[in-house]
Amino acid sequence: MGQDRILLDHGAGGKASADLVAEVFARHLGNPILNDLDDAAVLEAPPGRLAVSTDSFVVDPIFFPGGDIGSLAVHGTVNDVAMRGAKPLYLTAGFVLEEGLAVADLERIVASMARAATEAGVAIIAGDTKVVGRGQADKVFINTTGIGLIPDGLQIGAHRAAPGDAVLVSGTMGDHGVTIMATREGLGLEAPLSSDSASLNGLTSALIEACPGLKTLRDPTRGGLATALNEIATASGVALELNEEAIPMDPAVAGVCELLGLDPLFLANEGKLICIVEDTQADTALAVMREHPLGQNAALIGSCGAEPQGRVWLNTAVGGRRVLDMLSGEPLPRIC
Amino acid sequence: MGQDRILLDHGAGGKASADLVAEVFARHLGNPILNDLDDAAVLEAPPGRLAVSTDSFVVDPIFFPGGDIGSLAVHGTVNDVAMRGAKPLYLTAGFVLEEGLAVADLERIVASMARAATEAGVAIIAGDTKVVGRGQADKVFINTTGIGLIPDGLQIGAHRAAPGDAVLVSGTMGDHGVTIMATREGLGLEAPLSSDSASLNGLTSALIEACPGLKTLRDPTRGGLATALNEIATASGVALELNEEAIPMDPAVAGVCELLGLDPLFLANEGKLICIVEDTQADTALAVMREHPLGQNAALIGSCGAEPQGRVWLNTAVGGRRVLDMLSGEPLPRIC
Repeated sequence: MGQDRILLDHGAGGKASADLVAEVFARHLGNPILNDLDDAAVLEAPPGRLAVSTDSFVVDPIFFPGGDIGSLAVHGTVNDVAMRGAKPLYLTAGFVLEEGLAVADLERIVASMARAATEAGVAIIAGDTKVVGRGQADKVFINTTGIGLIPDGLQIGAHRAAPGDAVLVSGTMGDHGVTIMATREGLGLEAPLSSDSASLNGLTSALIEACPGLKTLRDPTRGGLATALNEIATASGVALELNEEAIPMDPAVAGVCELLGLDPLFLANEGKLICIVEDTQADTALAVMREHPLGQNAALIGSCGAEPQGRVWLNTAVGGRRVLDMLSGEPLPRIC
Repeated sequence: MGQDRILLDHGAGGKASADLVAEVFARHLGNPILNDLDDAAVLEAPPGRLAVSTDSFVVDPIFFPGGDIGSLAVHGTVNDVAMRGAKPLYLTAGFVLEEGLAVADLERIVASMARAATEAGVAIIAGDTKVVGRGQADKVFINTTGIGLIPDGLQIGAHRAAPGDAVLVSGTMGDHGVTIMATREGLGLEAPLSSDSASLNGLTSALIEACPGLKTLRDPTRGGLATALNEIATASGVALELNEEAIPMDPAVAGVCELLGLDPLFLANEGKLICIVEDTQADTALAVMREHPLGQNAALIGSCGAEPQGRVWLNTAVGGRRVLDMLSGEPLPRIC
């Protein structure tokens, strides 16, 4: 690159921009569609329904145990597309860089995106880079937009849960959120925390193949399990009833949450999914998830009822019963 | 909304986020696909080739004569998609908001996006909002990603120009760039400057219909006419020769450029296009553009030669001849 730090020049659209694209972005992310470098990428649209999702990533810190903003930006959007039952095919990537960012950090992030994209089987087909002055952004923000193809006839969505269905999760809750909080606050905790950030499209494909009675998939990111389940309960017009003891939790995460006064049910996950299936297929879904490397701690955590519509109940470990509401107040900013 | 200012809460994924989505985004941008509010939007993919483009907008100031960051974010991505000959259909929108942004400003921006999307005939089908702390971003950044459909058999791209082709532009050069610079610097100039920000898909459709010999379309944004022509010359392996006197220029823009020491050929345009056509269709292309409200000042500005490949020459008004290179150094940051 010739420079160690990102300069305003790198975003001005001239020679420095072209060098940055060639030496950092195209070198790591290059593929025949991206390499075209025209105003827009051209691709053959497979016939059928497309799932499209966009997400901006502003996580702080940009490097954390288990990942970085680059891998997270791939995983997060791949997962949003996969949660509609789609096979993710293409991603775009838009960068906003702060003047002074170390080029080595940017390269590390872009290389991490490239690995994550390869693992997920998606191609990054279009990109954009803007540079803003020092203090006008915090290091790097990344937007990814994903396009996936939904198999013929498949209907999966937050509105499809029905009374009698089973509610499962693919693993422990809160790992990403607590890792970011602990890392950011420099807590130097002894606990072996790591983000669960991962692409879930392999797991969703396996579930779709094995379970024709699959109704809803959702990754409980910002707002955590509690918020995602409230959204499903509202969209489907059902009541959801959970058993607190059945919700998988890493003991280290539970311990740090107690220390920090956080509720893991409201913390973000970036490599876990909620799966709602017809009751008769709950065992199949559980077995499929537990066979997958990303679903080894999968569990049946509750069921759908009819009333009161839009409400989520938690049967607590001590025998009580309480409403589990959406995240409200106590923001955990820049968790993704 | 209950609040006048954006809070960290609005990006946390809980109740405040849901309120912001309902009361600002869905209210202005709502359509049946967006209103689904699931992890990803689902749409019917028209069969054929898709053009996909992504762009992040960080323009400073966020409101300027002739537009704002919201309309610009629609125009810019609609235009990138249209420059591949595609009919733009869908946009996604990802917002990064700075804590403390006035909600009224956000609403004004979102309403402006909605108007621009309606005018361009595109639907905003998916969105995302993140909030970062004060001083971690500058007011608002917007990423838009666009998807368009390329008519069967149409081949338009930066690599298709050939010796003998004619080079045209749809209007005056430098209007957007000089307007942003003058507004940002608070120059209080008497000159009636206004950004040319506009969606060009109507103009590109008219050109495509009238000119089967259309080779290349490009909107000269960051880096201006000079940079865009250098990119075309390189991609096509041609030499481009321009007549300086033929390049349309608003006298006010020319005057302010002289005052500020800026070269309008390197300044961004957001509502103009370069059009390269077979020589025999130059008159048709010119007539089509001049009939369109956004092409009234269209002009034939030069031609393609064979050698030296990748070079752009400018025949100057005073009878000289010089190489017109890409933008290099002198960054004009946050112009879009």
